[in-house]
Amino acid sequence: MGLDGLDGNLRINKAGHLEIAGCDAVELARIYGTPLYVMDEDNIRERAGRFRDGLLKAYPDSQVIYAGKAFSNLAMCRIVAEEGLGLDVASGGELYTALMADFPPERIYFHGNNKTPEELEMGLRAKIGRFMVDNFHELEMLEELARKMRTKAHIMLRTTPGVEAHTHEYIRTGQLDSKFGFGIPSGQAIKALERAFSKGHIVVHGVHCHIGSQIFELESYRVACEIMMDFLKEVRDKTGRILEELNLGGGLGIRYTENDPRPSLDEYIAIITGTIKAKAKEHGLPLPKVLVEPGRYIVGEAGITLYTIGSVKEVPGVRKYVAVDGGYTDNPRVALYRARYRAMVANKATEEPVEVVSIAGRSCESGDMLIWDIKLPRVEPGDILAVFSTGAYHYAMSSNYNRFPRPAVVFVSKGRADIAVERETYEDLISKDRLPAWLASKATAKVAL
Amino acid sequence: MGLDGLDGNLRINKAGHLEIAGCDAVELARIYGTPLYVMDEDNIRERAGRFRDGLLKAYPDSQVIYAGKAFSNLAMCRIVAEEGLGLDVASGGELYTALMADFPPERIYFHGNNKTPEELEMGLRAKIGRFMVDNFHELEMLEELARKMRTKAHIMLRTTPGVEAHTHEYIRTGQLDSKFGFGIPSGQAIKALERAFSKGHIVVHGVHCHIGSQIFELESYRVACEIMMDFLKEVRDKTGRILEELNLGGGLGIRYTENDPRPSLDEYIAIITGTIKAKAKEHGLPLPKVLVEPGRYIVGEAGITLYTIGSVKEVPGVRKYVAVDGGYTDNPRVALYRARYRAMVANKATEEPVEVVSIAGRSCESGDMLIWDIKLPRVEPGDILAVFSTGAYHYAMSSNYNRFPRPAVVFVSKGRADIAVERETYEDLISKDRLPAWLASKATAKVAL
Repeated sequence: MGLDGLDGNLRINKAGHLEIAGCDAVELARIYGTPLYVMDEDNIRERAGRFRDGLLKAYPDSQVIYAGKAFSNLAMCRIVAEEGLGLDVASGGELYTALMADFPPERIYFHGNNKTPEELEMGLRAKIGRFMVDNFHELEMLEELARKMRTKAHIMLRTTPGVEAHTHEYIRTGQLDSKFGFGIPSGQAIKALERAFSKGHIVVHGVHCHIGSQIFELESYRVACEIMMDFLKEVRDKTGRILEELNLGGGLGIRYTENDPRPSLDEYIAIITGTIKAKAKEHGLPLPKVLVEPGRYIVGEAGITLYTIGSVKEVPGVRKYVAVDGGYTDNPRVALYRARYRAMVANKATEEPVEVVSIAGRSCESGDMLIWDIKLPRVEPGDILAVFSTGAYHYAMSSNYNRFPRPAVVFVSKGRADIAVERETYEDLISKDRLPAWLASKATAKVAL
Repeated sequence: MGLDGLDGNLRINKAGHLEIAGCDAVELARIYGTPLYVMDEDNIRERAGRFRDGLLKAYPDSQVIYAGKAFSNLAMCRIVAEEGLGLDVASGGELYTALMADFPPERIYFHGNNKTPEELEMGLRAKIGRFMVDNFHELEMLEELARKMRTKAHIMLRTTPGVEAHTHEYIRTGQLDSKFGFGIPSGQAIKALERAFSKGHIVVHGVHCHIGSQIFELESYRVACEIMMDFLKEVRDKTGRILEELNLGGGLGIRYTENDPRPSLDEYIAIITGTIKAKAKEHGLPLPKVLVEPGRYIVGEAGITLYTIGSVKEVPGVRKYVAVDGGYTDNPRVALYRARYRAMVANKATEEPVEVVSIAGRSCESGDMLIWDIKLPRVEPGDILAVFSTGAYHYAMSSNYNRFPRPAVVFVSKGRADIAVERETYEDLISKDRLPAWLASKATAKVAL
């Protein structure tokens, strides 16, 4: 199997080690310790560029927006800025990170189903590009805040088109049972737009939809585009207003294992731009600016996680457990979604796989397993395991469960490596701990037992 | 429904607000902000005391050990120390926290299926009470380290008895498919003990088992006790050694909703101590010291989480979504285990529930729902929602997904409130972020699009 079908700058070097973007993975583990998130910056830039240029070529009036919730920190924001992409933020914390990275505020899109007044004010002060307005409460708060601050809030309206995407099929549902956005079929969306148009401090630029995550069935996008373009027509017909921006969200799938398909980016672009052009013509509408929001697609396959193998346990006649020095805390996706992964022993990259083992995490939780049944070369304590496709929603979702310090993030590019996020220390774990006054005031009673 | 069946010092005060340990929950939210973890210290001490005293009364040679992975920080370690309990740690980070809280090291029990050499050394230096040895690799490392440090490692052996507990039944399985411990039926456990006995720097005190979590069916414990006592007999018969300590792990269930049973602590104690005494007599064994490891049982029902309600969204004919300012990041248990919770509007505690709503978290993830279908009084933005039974595995498993700062933890006791863990800030979120050299060295290219 080796590296077959894996994306990015992965190869096996002369030492028989896994190499990523010109850096020896075993050396990275030695220098920076494990567990370690390694991000292939060259691959991130390639994928961002492929998305941006592919879309621009097919549809010049377009903008690719990176969904920061997949993986956000100062270094990533800087790369997104340099690549000319926009940036989705899903919280004040993500907005803060972007601003501290000098990300151009006009390219920031603020998402979320329950933004706080403080977050909205922060966005208005920073003059971000768009608020993705999710509900009436937000619309009213935003108008009120913008009025007080004598400014304008530039918005897109988040809608629910009634398309739900599944991996291998799509269904079109009348049941718009989502916490996000305004339903189009229910009439909520047009009602919300009319309300927004009536506001003196709100500038409505367009509408947004997002039909799901990790989507392989591109037909779902065609259906969503049709509904959204029909909606733009409805808006024009009912209100006389022509909306100039259409944001189609994200969700394009990536490959975690060799069994996952890899949707064609070109086909995706052809489907959405083709549908929009055809529908614009059909409805006599001008072509809207098209925005898309890939997150996982940009960073997912660019990341690997390196672990050191510790205990190897044979349960006779049942299974061989190979434990690594990370797990649930750096990769909650297995427990959350029963996600599956590919892996390789980085220091034995040329050795033949000879036995089926299961990779256990080290959290004190029986559910903390990383990979069930994977064929590897014979492993021993000290070996370095590389798990692939961990660039999205891994660092972002990591925790300190069991009080494990969170791993470092290292960026690699053209043979260079450097820290993007430092490893947490034990001191960090208690840095927020305080003793309530009544506990601090007395010495610990050392009960003799 | 009100507060019926909820444990702890919860009541409704004259203002019509929820009160916890004499503190008005609405005031707590105002003073400390939301989301906020509130821990009823009085309830923690009551439950710890009930467990400790109940077990001591039935079985004088016993020790209750609090499983720190459920909820650990300096203040909690101090309380555990004061209450005379032992402390389970599951990592170097939990050990560090305990030591910094001046927790008596001799009462510390170190768990984990893949302890690192650094962690073992840390435990040896601190002279902790027991290493709960999980596998041969750990045993060898421990002997080697103790030899080098000219000390002894005091251990218990973690075993897998072949009992798997379920909520309403138990099954006894020959398949010991667990990442933890040494199988008893497979003969691994006796083999490991023989190996441990032969080591010059290892002192074996006893054996440990843990049959699962959130257990309501107490019969599972009886079966586990029988297997463990039979194993002590087998050890004596085969090796001539009498092990003096038996650790039965944790797992006793708590109540999250009114549909959960509440196992009787007295019955649990009666079952385990009765079985041990009967089996000791049957086998002609001296009574071992009995250790138990409750975590959730001590802190689970003592915690509530306070949220501020934000957007309220009616999806016509489908559902009313009520969004709060927290969710997945402070409570991953809903997404992980489909866990169910009770809640109350803290500032409308005397108002009749009039409508069924669903409580949505604010993470940009459609799976981020806290409670589906709960009957509440009419809610509006600014109301304070209290979710019950969030003391265990909530703060401990919290994350910064979407770059939300993690909530503060406040301890309440006899009408007093004070910070145990400070709220994270935006500054904290980027405190570990660094720019790789090649990114730091150039100004951000502001691509005009």
